[in-house]
Amino acid sequence: MAEIRLIEIKEEILADNAALAEEIRADLKRRGVFLLNLMSSPGSGKTSLIVRTLRRLRETFRIAVIEGDIDSIVDAETVSREGIPAVQLRTGGFCHLDASMIRLALNELDLASLDLIVIENVGNLVCPAEVDTGATKNAMILSVPEGDDKPLKYPLMFSVCDVVILNKTDYLEGSDFDVQAFRERVGRLNAKAPVLEVSCRTGAGLDAWIDWLRTRADATRGSASR
Amino acid sequence: MAEIRLIEIKEEILADNAALAEEIRADLKRRGVFLLNLMSSPGSGKTSLIVRTLRRLRETFRIAVIEGDIDSIVDAETVSREGIPAVQLRTGGFCHLDASMIRLALNELDLASLDLIVIENVGNLVCPAEVDTGATKNAMILSVPEGDDKPLKYPLMFSVCDVVILNKTDYLEGSDFDVQAFRERVGRLNAKAPVLEVSCRTGAGLDAWIDWLRTRADATRGSASR
Repeated sequence: MAEIRLIEIKEEILADNAALAEEIRADLKRRGVFLLNLMSSPGSGKTSLIVRTLRRLRETFRIAVIEGDIDSIVDAETVSREGIPAVQLRTGGFCHLDASMIRLALNELDLASLDLIVIENVGNLVCPAEVDTGATKNAMILSVPEGDDKPLKYPLMFSVCDVVILNKTDYLEGSDFDVQAFRERVGRLNAKAPVLEVSCRTGAGLDAWIDWLRTRADATRGSASR
Repeated sequence: MAEIRLIEIKEEILADNAALAEEIRADLKRRGVFLLNLMSSPGSGKTSLIVRTLRRLRETFRIAVIEGDIDSIVDAETVSREGIPAVQLRTGGFCHLDASMIRLALNELDLASLDLIVIENVGNLVCPAEVDTGATKNAMILSVPEGDDKPLKYPLMFSVCDVVILNKTDYLEGSDFDVQAFRERVGRLNAKAPVLEVSCRTGAGLDAWIDWLRTRADATRGSASR
């Protein structure tokens, strides 16, 4: 038999992506820009949380948003109405954002005039967890109506995030969502990520989330080498 | 409203791919290496045609095969048993090969000792047609059992190929496959691509296919700038 060379394409592509993601992370750190990657299923409240966050932090930080969630510009328009610059990545059916797409989006922004950039990733609990975007930190939202069993079904997503936001806590009353069981399941996958209970509708619990983000974005801005 | 920048990800990715594909094509032309991209549905006979082709042309050309068809090394082993070097691209679920994957595979081959490389693309009549691999020429196989209506359903595939191979003609007898109607449908999409009727099982019609490929690979080899 002649020789067979075997190339694992997926691993090669992920390795290339990982290298670019590290480059992005280092570049943004040097500039003092904090890049937050926000992931969740469709409808968990990514856009609502982003709008709430913009309103609370816009006096303190210069913010922009990268929208990859859906194949339209609805979410970008929502952000733009808040007076915040937005880049809409029309993915044309791709199931996640990768570092090369984030690079394209960052090229459209004036990084010298920004402190905080929020990525609204594609609504999907699977693929975005596999692919490093170059973000400084990763956040995920689970909403109460999705159920407390999701850490069992999507363990990678819960493992890779730096913070878990449990949204729509206003639905907890009368629901069978077991917050304690959920916290234990998350804890077994990821001992470091805090679980923050919020309701974007009522505003309950948002202070803890805003503090989490503000502390980290402040530290990044403070350590800029400019 | 703040400004919204819109980036069409799919177009960007295809544009990057197109540039790399042109680079590959020019590089191989300079080296006198003919790269054939063979596309079809699963089970149309790509591997069978490749084995038949190797046996007919191995005395004349130094050949290698790039296998992307399936997520195992079965096809690469079939080729390797013929004494022909093979690179197996394990796509890990990707639905097509792109120029960056072909670049990886070419890097594993000693191009100076080759005249002809055949890519067995992923079995799929849709996505491979959208993505330029850098091949010198594109060939597609349709097998008689798939039906004469396929040009109507997969027009892009029939449009981008340089030759259409109608395989399994030994099934024509007693079938309702209308060869004349098929030829007309292909002709409306692609006036330049010849339709070659073959049976990899009986060997019928293979001479015309071998002639088609030999002529072109010969011309490429003859025009090498080495």
